[in-house]
Amino acid sequence: MEQLGKVYIVGAGPGPADLLTVKAHDCIKEADVILYDALISRDVRTLFPENAELIFVGKRAGDGVDVTERQNSIHHKIEKHAKQGKVVVRVKSGDPMIFSRGAEETSYLQEKNIPFEVVPGISAFNAASAEFGIPLTDRRGSNSLHLLSGRDVAGKLLSVKQLVSILENRGTAVIYMGTKVLEEIYEALDVVHRECIQATIVSRSGRWDAQKFKGTLQEMVSLNSETPVKTPALIYLRMEC
Amino acid sequence: MEQLGKVYIVGAGPGPADLLTVKAHDCIKEADVILYDALISRDVRTLFPENAELIFVGKRAGDGVDVTERQNSIHHKIEKHAKQGKVVVRVKSGDPMIFSRGAEETSYLQEKNIPFEVVPGISAFNAASAEFGIPLTDRRGSNSLHLLSGRDVAGKLLSVKQLVSILENRGTAVIYMGTKVLEEIYEALDVVHRECIQATIVSRSGRWDAQKFKGTLQEMVSLNSETPVKTPALIYLRMEC
Repeated sequence: MEQLGKVYIVGAGPGPADLLTVKAHDCIKEADVILYDALISRDVRTLFPENAELIFVGKRAGDGVDVTERQNSIHHKIEKHAKQGKVVVRVKSGDPMIFSRGAEETSYLQEKNIPFEVVPGISAFNAASAEFGIPLTDRRGSNSLHLLSGRDVAGKLLSVKQLVSILENRGTAVIYMGTKVLEEIYEALDVVHRECIQATIVSRSGRWDAQKFKGTLQEMVSLNSETPVKTPALIYLRMEC
Repeated sequence: MEQLGKVYIVGAGPGPADLLTVKAHDCIKEADVILYDALISRDVRTLFPENAELIFVGKRAGDGVDVTERQNSIHHKIEKHAKQGKVVVRVKSGDPMIFSRGAEETSYLQEKNIPFEVVPGISAFNAASAEFGIPLTDRRGSNSLHLLSGRDVAGKLLSVKQLVSILENRGTAVIYMGTKVLEEIYEALDVVHRECIQATIVSRSGRWDAQKFKGTLQEMVSLNSETPVKTPALIYLRMEC
């Protein structure tokens, strides 16, 4: 039986190569095979070693591939190369364990007894907070932080009841993939003092065209309905009165 | 008037130096003055340049210093050195914007018009998840992630109503500084099927003596009441039935 290789599930952070961890940087430099997504920046891709085999496994708009099928194909590619004794680096944007299907990849490797290690990464919500000075927790006001996605995998809107509970308890909510449902969320939030909700939208954090928009939730809804904010984008919400 | 220096509020991650970002590493290397906390690991401290002025600003057990007083004194020290034109690096464990008073430091610098930059870091919850393979979000089950602290700054227990809403909506809750109130939380959770709550406690993530304990919430309460888990520790909760 051949010697098994090792798989590194590596968080590449939000884009700039200097927001990789030193460990992620080292893993990439030692890779025999790299599997990477559409969101991996050019800045990070320039680190890929010349001799590594590079496999693009991202989604291309309109390619019609089913999400489960795509994910299974990634698992099989990782497995194949690991079984050839190679150092396989699976590069994912942000942190592999946050909205990123890292859990599916690690479960698969566990089942197949393939040695792996997860290298954490700076998630988009951290990076955007640092880039634009958006408080996450604050001893003076917000004591909790909540990461939600606009719709779940079945297409269901996030739980508005839960969002209300977060806001009423003075938590900070960060909504991933939420700009398309922003108006719907706003309408459903009519049970709280919506005029108190401060919203910050960060579009394309960590890139040259990063933008921040800040105002009341209502202002952000109007802005986004006139000219939809470019994705990927994050929405930060917090009660401020 | 003297030339103002620049302040970097840098996340040092959970402990190992290779979990710093490349940018954090570079900032530390160029520091004239470093202010650091008690939680900053020896591994990170070895990166501090020989010629930098090192200022320990952490809490020492039983020093009796009031938290606001300590924080103000940190602000004044940062300000003083920045006004001397120095590169001041404020090194904080984890990510500066998560349970770390980074927001207080950035507000102060903003008020005083002192140029600063926040460099994000790997937070303990990311690092422990990567180290011990704890899923955070998972397309197959958990669609949201919630960071709470066991008690707020006024000593109030986290909102159990909110925790129930998180668990019932199949989110993952991560409780910082929660082992001392674990039993209290357990008692208050009698409104849900407590036997369905899976708990993972990670103690001292990223250190040589890191430990993971996993079981039902009830099992974790018993374990922690017999031999209290060493801090800092994180508690991950999730409904699994």
